[in-house]
Amino acid sequence: MPLASRHLLGLEGMSKNDIQLILDTATSFREVLERPIKKVPTLQGKTIVNLFFESSTRTRTSFELAERRLSADVVNFSAESSSVRKGETLKDTARNIEMMKIDMVVMRHAAAGAAHFLSNVIGANIINAGDGAHEHPTQALLDMYTIREKFGKLEGLNVCIIGDIAHSRVALSNIYGLKTMGVTVSVCGPKTLIPKEIERLGVDVFYRVEDAIKVVDVLNVLRIQLERQNRPYFPSLREYRQYFGITRERLDKAERPITILHPGPVNRDVELSADVADSEHSLILQQVLNGVAVRMAVLYLLGTGK
Amino acid sequence: MPLASRHLLGLEGMSKNDIQLILDTATSFREVLERPIKKVPTLQGKTIVNLFFESSTRTRTSFELAERRLSADVVNFSAESSSVRKGETLKDTARNIEMMKIDMVVMRHAAAGAAHFLSNVIGANIINAGDGAHEHPTQALLDMYTIREKFGKLEGLNVCIIGDIAHSRVALSNIYGLKTMGVTVSVCGPKTLIPKEIERLGVDVFYRVEDAIKVVDVLNVLRIQLERQNRPYFPSLREYRQYFGITRERLDKAERPITILHPGPVNRDVELSADVADSEHSLILQQVLNGVAVRMAVLYLLGTGK
Amino acid sequence: MPLASRHLLGLEGMSKNDIQLILDTATSFREVLERPIKKVPTLQGKTIVNLFFESSTRTRTSFELAERRLSADVVNFSAESSSVRKGETLKDTARNIEMMKIDMVVMRHAAAGAAHFLSNVIGANIINAGDGAHEHPTQALLDMYTIREKFGKLEGLNVCIIGDIAHSRVALSNIYGLKTMGVTVSVCGPKTLIPKEIERLGVDVFYRVEDAIKVVDVLNVLRIQLERQNRPYFPSLREYRQYFGITRERLDKAERPITILHPGPVNRDVELSADVADSEHSLILQQVLNGVAVRMAVLYLLGTGK
Repeated sequence: MPLASRHLLGLEGMSKNDIQLILDTATSFREVLERPIKKVPTLQGKTIVNLFFESSTRTRTSFELAERRLSADVVNFSAESSSVRKGETLKDTARNIEMMKIDMVVMRHAAAGAAHFLSNVIGANIINAGDGAHEHPTQALLDMYTIREKFGKLEGLNVCIIGDIAHSRVALSNIYGLKTMGVTVSVCGPKTLIPKEIERLGVDVFYRVEDAIKVVDVLNVLRIQLERQNRPYFPSLREYRQYFGITRERLDKAERPITILHPGPVNRDVELSADVADSEHSLILQQVLNGVAVRMAVLYLLGTGK
Repeated sequence: MPLASRHLLGLEGMSKNDIQLILDTATSFREVLERPIKKVPTLQGKTIVNLFFESSTRTRTSFELAERRLSADVVNFSAESSSVRKGETLKDTARNIEMMKIDMVVMRHAAAGAAHFLSNVIGANIINAGDGAHEHPTQALLDMYTIREKFGKLEGLNVCIIGDIAHSRVALSNIYGLKTMGVTVSVCGPKTLIPKEIERLGVDVFYRVEDAIKVVDVLNVLRIQLERQNRPYFPSLREYRQYFGITRERLDKAERPITILHPGPVNRDVELSADVADSEHSLILQQVLNGVAVRMAVLYLLGTGK
Repeated sequence: MPLASRHLLGLEGMSKNDIQLILDTATSFREVLERPIKKVPTLQGKTIVNLFFESSTRTRTSFELAERRLSADVVNFSAESSSVRKGETLKDTARNIEMMKIDMVVMRHAAAGAAHFLSNVIGANIINAGDGAHEHPTQALLDMYTIREKFGKLEGLNVCIIGDIAHSRVALSNIYGLKTMGVTVSVCGPKTLIPKEIERLGVDVFYRVEDAIKVVDVLNVLRIQLERQNRPYFPSLREYRQYFGITRERLDKAERPITILHPGPVNRDVELSADVADSEHSLILQQVLNGVAVRMAVLYLLGTGK
């Protein structure tokens, strides 16, 4: 049975079955990645455009590798290009892409809703690689894949997302996905970085990291992105680290070992101490590997209509 | 019978037969673009370098798609690169390319004659993707393809090119090609933007857009590129729009429906009003699709010596 | 018999047998480059990342062509990317690459030792495309290939490297490689640009270009890179040219014809006069061609473990 949608715009409203199908398909591609020849002919003759209006290294490279390993033709279309302008021009860009007979578009854009807009304008399959502070579904899917791989399940686990919840598309996609899969989800961070309406999504809120650590199986530690804040939401990095930094000392106070995720790149010794990032409880590098497999799964399922 | 030249440097002097061969070949590739798998193995094993000394999104992407769909290997070589310098270095760059055993070079350069120069220095097939204010032959070929597709013929039609004729390589290539194909060609724009010698090319000149609209089948509306003018040739965009902007009102005064072309991207409500750009008389998006097919045809004909 | 190392980090310590194996393998690939289809399926399904922390046109393009002609999948990862930071982040970048299951990495980096560091952190084959003022082994290999092609041998020849020896990775790699192959090596340049300890490497030093010209078969003329000097090491380009510029006049004083190499791009009429660069004694363009063949050989030998 194919996915319910021809696009992957977000995890809000995606069914448990669809998430499970993506994660199960990713397991097959994880096996492909262990082979000497990591390439399959699945998307041969298909053209995929990576349309990145925000610069990105990791996500773009991860998608590009996934695309090439499925034998697709890849065209990179970056934002520095002169003819990309604000406002309605996304529509013009989209229609141009449409006319060039592109099969799939992977898009990152600073505006929430940009991928959704694109899916209404053109016929290609759209994959949202991050739209403003809205969603980043493949990141949440690879986070869930990594947790499921470690614990053998998702249902019944307790996951806390810690950091700048208000500006994080990673947080929002994780909340939607994890809730659907039966996970108990909480968020933690300074009051200024937690949206007031967040509890409506069915998540608990912690304002002290010590309280979160008492109950969770997994801490998904967000990157502090000073560049994305229009005004300062906390006094200093030093203070952030003092109250919310995940350190060995803090984790040692938990009764059971806590698994650490981080979307990368880590600000070492800011939101996460270097020794924890490199410890056996950190699955950060595993997330990178799983990211390629999950993206191959999404591209495969959407690109073949399966 | 192959094309007369191993290169596509411009449409000046290209025979009617050669233009017809390119347009007819493009028709076959338009059919390829409608297939689920839009790829043919024609140029497998050939290496094409896209050598863009001026930044470009649409033209470069269109060429790159055409190249990949012919199964060529593509290397992008952009102008930001540190070793590209002014003056004689084009020669050095060219010789390096020569030695790397490149089969074809698609080049855009700010200097008129750059592609011609290159074709004298190296053995690869050269395709001019725009050289200064001189020629942009694939743009004119796709314009002609689009007109022929709409009217079923070129001969006997009446086409007016409107805008900054003096600085436009699109205008010049269109004039050469359309004249060869038996089209009645005129240009229209402010006096400061019409070269005095233009009538020697066998084109009529209109200084009032109303006069042009009375007689034409097709208006090819050029993009106003303020950035390319070293000094102001007209007082303001507002005034340009007032006198030369193509609006619904102006078009309604014509006795027959007028077909609109534009090389893109459109400055909406400057040289062309948004509603006209999106109307059923506009073939702007069709031009984008045909651009890929026409470029596939040119690459195929030159790359295989057919 | 395969190469002794899984990586190509430098020519220091590389055995005569290994150098000979690379040069002999490059001869086969030179033949491939003369065929109409210059592509072989050797590295099909392998993924190579070009990781250039310093911008480069020629070396990157040469590697990219070599990679594509071996049918590898190529991902370019350039330094402008936002997540690339100084210091320990090279480690984080490396581990990410590791996790993405990349087979080979070609890296250029401003820090001496960067490629060596990378080879200790990840499992992919590493090829050093230049690390600070340390080594640039493929450049030296292509220089040696070009000399051997001309003279039919390396042993017994007399080669002088002239220019900014102190800051040149090309010079150092050439010294190591040429010495191993039994060549008499000397360096020549202003005192400020010759490291004091250079004689320990078994090379002679000339401070007057006239003295070098008397004895050599080959002059390898380095590019004067003002941008890489933190402080001026010679008064002016004019003075450099006056004392060290290689001109027809100077060469005419030699008893036998002297072969000229230059890693490119040439500062014409600075370190090398234009007429000498274009003369029959210059092998500069031959170096470019051989560069692709030598890089194909290195990628082939490392990528297949042969």
